Amino acid sequence: MGSHVFDQAIALTAVSPNLYKGATSEAFANMVGPFGGVTAAILLNAALQHPERLGDPVSLTVNFAGPVADGEFEVEATPLRTNRSTQHWLLLQKQNGELVTSATAFFATRRETQSAQQLSAPVAPAATTLQRLDINIRNWFKQYDFRFVHGIPLQPRLASQPHDTETLLWVRDYPERQLDFASLTALGDVFAPRIFMLRDSFTPAGTVSMTHYFHAVGEELSNVGSGFLLGRALASRLHNNYADQIAHLWSEDGVLLLSSTQSVYFK
Amino acid sequence: MGSHVFDQAIALTAVSPNLYKGATSEAFANMVGPFGGVTAAILLNAALQHPERLGDPVSLTVNFAGPVADGEFEVEATPLRTNRSTQHWLLLQKQNGELVTSATAFFATRRETQSAQQLSAPVAPAATTLQRLDINIRNWFKQYDFRFVHGIPLQPRLASQPHDTETLLWVRDYPERQLDFASLTALGDVFAPRIFMLRDSFTPAGTVSMTHYFHAVGEELSNVGSGFLLGRALASRLHNNYADQIAHLWSEDGVLLLSSTQSVYFK
Repeated sequence: MGSHVFDQAIALTAVSPNLYKGATSEAFANMVGPFGGVTAAILLNAALQHPERLGDPVSLTVNFAGPVADGEFEVEATPLRTNRSTQHWLLLQKQNGELVTSATAFFATRRETQSAQQLSAPVAPAATTLQRLDINIRNWFKQYDFRFVHGIPLQPRLASQPHDTETLLWVRDYPERQLDFASLTALGDVFAPRIFMLRDSFTPAGTVSMTHYFHAVGEELSNVGSGFLLGRALASRLHNNYADQIAHLWSEDGVLLLSSTQSVYFK
Repeated sequence: MGSHVFDQAIALTAVSPNLYKGATSEAFANMVGPFGGVTAAILLNAALQHPERLGDPVSLTVNFAGPVADGEFEVEATPLRTNRSTQHWLLLQKQNGELVTSATAFFATRRETQSAQQLSAPVAPAATTLQRLDINIRNWFKQYDFRFVHGIPLQPRLASQPHDTETLLWVRDYPERQLDFASLTALGDVFAPRIFMLRDSFTPAGTVSMTHYFHAVGEELSNVGSGFLLGRALASRLHNNYADQIAHLWSEDGVLLLSSTQSVYFK
């Protein structure tokens, strides 16, 4: 276990084959239970450190089934099927025998192929020219260095601003930490529910399902180091209690590292 | 079971609690095994017809773990957790005891709320002004009425055409069939691997994971009837054997019914 607060939060102890135990971290507390991004990273981490693991994560879907209570939990990590160069995982987080989070993950060994990036990074001022957002109303906010370009949630709008759901921001771990698959997983979940872009005050909302596609391979994560990522999130439709969210994270030099989608409950 | 070829293809028989059996359909055969959209619809159908089902599908993630052989299969449909108005499912398709497809689904009862569509339907000529694409190189193509606006896969490009991965098309079941959650699930998977937009000839490729978000509620599906859907698909990045795909399906009157993402293997 590294000494960084994020490494402490995602640490798991092997109990028996396919079974790990861990505990929630006060540092990543959200309003109810922990920040979902850290829960997602914990589930991925069970597969990452499993002795039968093959290759690197390509996709991860996390379903937030019920609130995670403060304290201990178990993670069952089962390789459902392993092929020559691909592997499918089922990951179940439980507390007192009850499921709180389920996930599936797809891992693969990857080779060089034709490569094309279709979605360019949006134009944005350099992170270093922007102020760190100083809001500490949730513990987990303190673990990130957020520098908003536009789209701060729950802010009254000028009439001249487009009434849309887009946020553009720079973000990295705080204190700084070398990017890896686990921290990229959590960083993909830092955007507030998009309904907050259409409202001026807090209302109940939360992610029910999240899917990450890891475009980044290990070398690209190393190249980022502890640099800022540029993140953009927006919704396609918000309707009858559920909204989607499409998010992307780019490196400072414009490499698309992660595509992510969410289905988000709102009242 | 309806008499439509799609209803026959997704039909399941209850064997015991949480266990169903079915068989692949020659009508939906792809190059290797069945069309993935029909496999996804079969897994969703197990939850849809389960006696403990609560509400309607909001999200579905399907992981294609191995080839589905022609013939019989089993589907294990387990409600992992049921809350007051939400339900989480695990769906496993097996052949001879081996996992071939895994899925998770999230269902919910939905109420009227603030509603906003952020992503408008692209401008396109009416479906009736376009020719049905007459290609029958795979059986499953015959079960759909495809009318391409642009972005036919594996076509040589004019130098003047943008070298991108976008397809825009109209599509509906053929013969016509009233839209429902199962057919919308399959329709969300009709786009060819995006790598085929950058290549002139066929190379091995296939979806490894697909996530659908159902914006549509039952009344909106009824309103579509058997009308055409406008579908757009594009990739964000193709790199080291895997590409993503973001797709959306709108009704003829511009209501966003489905947001979908895929992770797609390519050689």
